[in-house]
Amino acid sequence: MTTATDLDALIARRRPGWSLERAFYTDPPVFAADMQAVWKRNWLFVGHVSRIREHGQYFLVEIAGESLIIIRGKDGAVNALYNVCRHRGSRICLESEGKAKALVCPYHQWTFQPDGALIGARFMPEGFDRAQFGLHRARVEVAEGLIFVALSDDAPSFAPVARDLTRFVAPNGMADRAKICHTHRTRVTANWKLVVENFRECYHCEGSHPEYLSAVSWGKKARSEAENAERTAMGAQARERWKAQGLAVDGTDFGADTWHHCGRGTLKAGYQSWSLDGAPCAPLMGSLPSRDHWLMGFVMYPNFFLEGGCDYLATTRLLPVSATETDIEICWYVHQDAVEGVDYQVDRVTAVWKATAEQDLTLVQNNHAGVASERYQPGPYSTMEATDIEHFLAWYVRQLTAAKPSSACAAR
Amino acid sequence: MTTATDLDALIARRRPGWSLERAFYTDPPVFAADMQAVWKRNWLFVGHVSRIREHGQYFLVEIAGESLIIIRGKDGAVNALYNVCRHRGSRICLESEGKAKALVCPYHQWTFQPDGALIGARFMPEGFDRAQFGLHRARVEVAEGLIFVALSDDAPSFAPVARDLTRFVAPNGMADRAKICHTHRTRVTANWKLVVENFRECYHCEGSHPEYLSAVSWGKKARSEAENAERTAMGAQARERWKAQGLAVDGTDFGADTWHHCGRGTLKAGYQSWSLDGAPCAPLMGSLPSRDHWLMGFVMYPNFFLEGGCDYLATTRLLPVSATETDIEICWYVHQDAVEGVDYQVDRVTAVWKATAEQDLTLVQNNHAGVASERYQPGPYSTMEATDIEHFLAWYVRQLTAAKPSSACAAR
Amino acid sequence: MTTATDLDALIARRRPGWSLERAFYTDPPVFAADMQAVWKRNWLFVGHVSRIREHGQYFLVEIAGESLIIIRGKDGAVNALYNVCRHRGSRICLESEGKAKALVCPYHQWTFQPDGALIGARFMPEGFDRAQFGLHRARVEVAEGLIFVALSDDAPSFAPVARDLTRFVAPNGMADRAKICHTHRTRVTANWKLVVENFRECYHCEGSHPEYLSAVSWGKKARSEAENAERTAMGAQARERWKAQGLAVDGTDFGADTWHHCGRGTLKAGYQSWSLDGAPCAPLMGSLPSRDHWLMGFVMYPNFFLEGGCDYLATTRLLPVSATETDIEICWYVHQDAVEGVDYQVDRVTAVWKATAEQDLTLVQNNHAGVASERYQPGPYSTMEATDIEHFLAWYVRQLTAAKPSSACAAR
Repeated sequence: MTTATDLDALIARRRPGWSLERAFYTDPPVFAADMQAVWKRNWLFVGHVSRIREHGQYFLVEIAGESLIIIRGKDGAVNALYNVCRHRGSRICLESEGKAKALVCPYHQWTFQPDGALIGARFMPEGFDRAQFGLHRARVEVAEGLIFVALSDDAPSFAPVARDLTRFVAPNGMADRAKICHTHRTRVTANWKLVVENFRECYHCEGSHPEYLSAVSWGKKARSEAENAERTAMGAQARERWKAQGLAVDGTDFGADTWHHCGRGTLKAGYQSWSLDGAPCAPLMGSLPSRDHWLMGFVMYPNFFLEGGCDYLATTRLLPVSATETDIEICWYVHQDAVEGVDYQVDRVTAVWKATAEQDLTLVQNNHAGVASERYQPGPYSTMEATDIEHFLAWYVRQLTAAKPSSACAAR
Repeated sequence: MTTATDLDALIARRRPGWSLERAFYTDPPVFAADMQAVWKRNWLFVGHVSRIREHGQYFLVEIAGESLIIIRGKDGAVNALYNVCRHRGSRICLESEGKAKALVCPYHQWTFQPDGALIGARFMPEGFDRAQFGLHRARVEVAEGLIFVALSDDAPSFAPVARDLTRFVAPNGMADRAKICHTHRTRVTANWKLVVENFRECYHCEGSHPEYLSAVSWGKKARSEAENAERTAMGAQARERWKAQGLAVDGTDFGADTWHHCGRGTLKAGYQSWSLDGAPCAPLMGSLPSRDHWLMGFVMYPNFFLEGGCDYLATTRLLPVSATETDIEICWYVHQDAVEGVDYQVDRVTAVWKATAEQDLTLVQNNHAGVASERYQPGPYSTMEATDIEHFLAWYVRQLTAAKPSSACAAR
Repeated sequence: MTTATDLDALIARRRPGWSLERAFYTDPPVFAADMQAVWKRNWLFVGHVSRIREHGQYFLVEIAGESLIIIRGKDGAVNALYNVCRHRGSRICLESEGKAKALVCPYHQWTFQPDGALIGARFMPEGFDRAQFGLHRARVEVAEGLIFVALSDDAPSFAPVARDLTRFVAPNGMADRAKICHTHRTRVTANWKLVVENFRECYHCEGSHPEYLSAVSWGKKARSEAENAERTAMGAQARERWKAQGLAVDGTDFGADTWHHCGRGTLKAGYQSWSLDGAPCAPLMGSLPSRDHWLMGFVMYPNFFLEGGCDYLATTRLLPVSATETDIEICWYVHQDAVEGVDYQVDRVTAVWKATAEQDLTLVQNNHAGVASERYQPGPYSTMEATDIEHFLAWYVRQLTAAKPSSACAAR
């Protein structure tokens, strides 16, 4: 077991460009530190507004044992409420989703508005002040139909992420013209950081992701200068065309202070969709004027991943359960007017990313099983992994160290 | 995790009239303290004598991992023996109930009498003294057919409980003319104190217990002075009638030094049994002269609850498994001569209390799930809960503080 | 929970001739000490060479969460490799057995030879030295076809065990003419030491092992001087005959510094095999010249047990999972040319030892369940147990104390 002091030592010993020591991936005390420093101090993706378009619609989100109610208020606002009655602590909502104009605790019928205010409590003693007993709330941001919550006031400004979501995701109509066409949920036996590391590198792609590589143009390193030049030229042409269509092309890279990135890249020439064969999967989303061979990606630490093209998008949400378990929820989105079986087939829409995600989750479970060995020791990243994973790990360590006053800070 | 010092702080911070802090309900160290201070220092209900009428009959009881053999001796006495061989520690009885004139360890055949004395051990070395190797025993009290055990000598005198069991339960013939007609066992994912709290208040009844409320006269608060007066008059009349029948009517209330209470109240006018429709469920129990609309209740901390009327009784037994799990066993009793299918139907006998108990156990599991949240904080009890729950919690805290010499005591 | 200091106290309090205190059998910290002091510093049996006769054949072994690959190299050597990639720690082999000329990590295709050398790693940075990233290895010894590993360099010399395996096991042809005809795997809920204790005494045989006792001549204590004399005479005669056949008869007893023993004893007169009825089970093994009524036994602490006669052998392998769980693997061996259904029936070959082992494993699980009680306390061994179990326990305690510099050592 790792104590606070051990954590300092672990951080001090970390060697950039190498994988982390075992304790970071397996120890419950490090997981507890992760929860405080990372998961309770950053914005977390929870789901799409199409699940709660109407007043009183809600769904539950479980984050390491905490249950949150994501519910639409009468005023149209999205609220995130702790699913814990202020009377004696009972869970209030028991179903994973539903609709209720008021939230009534099943134990003693304390009744709350969708904004958390207590509006009913029978037989309470003289002097009881309902205003003091509203449900605890988390912060909420909604950007382009995507709902994010923050469990503490320490979370950084959401504005940079919102700006880029508008730039990149808005044309797909996610705010008001998209629906979820399929949801895939699974629990992997792996630390959440191993899942993120996997999602941040494509060194493993060639050995594991035939579906993924069959569509994108950059999956394998170019085999010649000529091939490289060809790709560059195709990319430059495409960027001009996309600009002409009003699509953002200048992505945001990860930098010293950033915790998200996004960009638009090319699928293979001639592809009209991010599908197995490049043929369309579904009607064009949002306000997009025409098909084109682009694939968009958006990553926000620690739990949000979005990928997709002109006719569907997919979001991947990570939520940690324990040091060794992580819940994954993948949702696929199409135009809300598209009719299943007529305009699209779920199997075709989900084919590439479902196969890829299942391959990834097998890889990270094998990774976790090996990392749990006493003989595991950190290894060096390849040139195909180093930059992206290192950015994530450096950000992660900054979270751990920022979460408490360091001795240097105390000296100031 | 909670250390001993934390426990002192938790106790010091407790606010009467409010629910306990989370650690009391979820932390393993508090559970360990509960086991020592409460469960090993108080009388515990284990079962009814009808399960072991004959010499050698036994049943097992599991209390937080400890296995006890409750067995009838040749002399008719009921013994409670630790199910741990004194040779190398094997479990001796492996079935949950059975009959054996001698207890033979399955490992090396050490043989014990039903009173625990070692009477056979082959090939032991010179000087081996069988008298030193009898099975460890727990204390036993049997009152009106109900068997109670105490795991230490520190348990308080059982006399006050025995006296009231005789006053209230004897007329139902539980000592020698009752049998178990149904048993319901379940494990709830909830701390044992949440189960007790639930059983000690009826604030939740109106929202959850239609069957229960359909029969009793006091379930809902009276809606008018007139209704209140009517109830009072009916109660006074009934008490005179019951006294005339030789039935105890003056119950024992919980007080500063008491850990049980009992009483007799009225079912709705005209009810002849505590059944869904008030019609009889079974033949009159014991020596009762005639049907009447009473419901008797008996509670003994920490694990015994009895309720019932003139034709059946039900006992509810709590046994903790861990900080987050509690085993519940409910037994229903009828006259031993009653014939199933002829004199009674199990479904009718169990209808009210089974429905009520299942509702309760769902409520306490929801309660526990919410209390486990980091955002749970103690809330105020309503006027319908405060007195009864507070009595239990005050008793509970007295157990924790009495179990070790406090600094105040040390100073004396 | 037991701290290092507690362990010293536990050891100091141990009373020879009595079973151990509960903490030795149930506490995770004692289990952690066992792993370091016993399991990582001694030779462990893992399996038979017939599973990996060909280059690249491998099987996995799990020891308390560690996964080892036992694999045949190109040079014919048997290697034991930690199943943890040196890149980012992934498990490399995922199937419990297989064949692979090279070990390719499924994550990023780092490729290793069966001797652990890294021979392939794409896109690694300048200066990356493959020689530094071979798989971690455990030590391996193969004696008479039986594979043993040691997880540290501190393991004692294997020579004495190898010598006795050659003396006793070689005639059965285990090195090159035996095959596994059946494997039985099970996980018992019991500390590994309780399993060893069970295997080291026959006090329990009379009550539990009718099949075992039906065949051996010494299972029950002789009931008279005459019977004893008869047994002795039969033994002496047999020994002369075995010597004439070139079979070892002088076993090795456990002594102050030994951690294995072996010997050859008599089955009942007339028995030709260690079968239920004494009739042959299979063709003679190895180079044995003729059937005879002997039963051979070989024990090596902490995890190897071998028993069998002239036509089959059985090995029993223990591998701890946790303080309360132990994996058992039993393999039966016959002549490699014997044809199932023609020359032997699996049911007949396995009948005695399978029945006996299942009886034993039930006994140790009952033992563990009782030892976990707070009221368990050490008990005295009988005269039929004391010597053999005490030898094991004394060896065990020596491992614990030898594993760290004691204060006495520090003073030197």
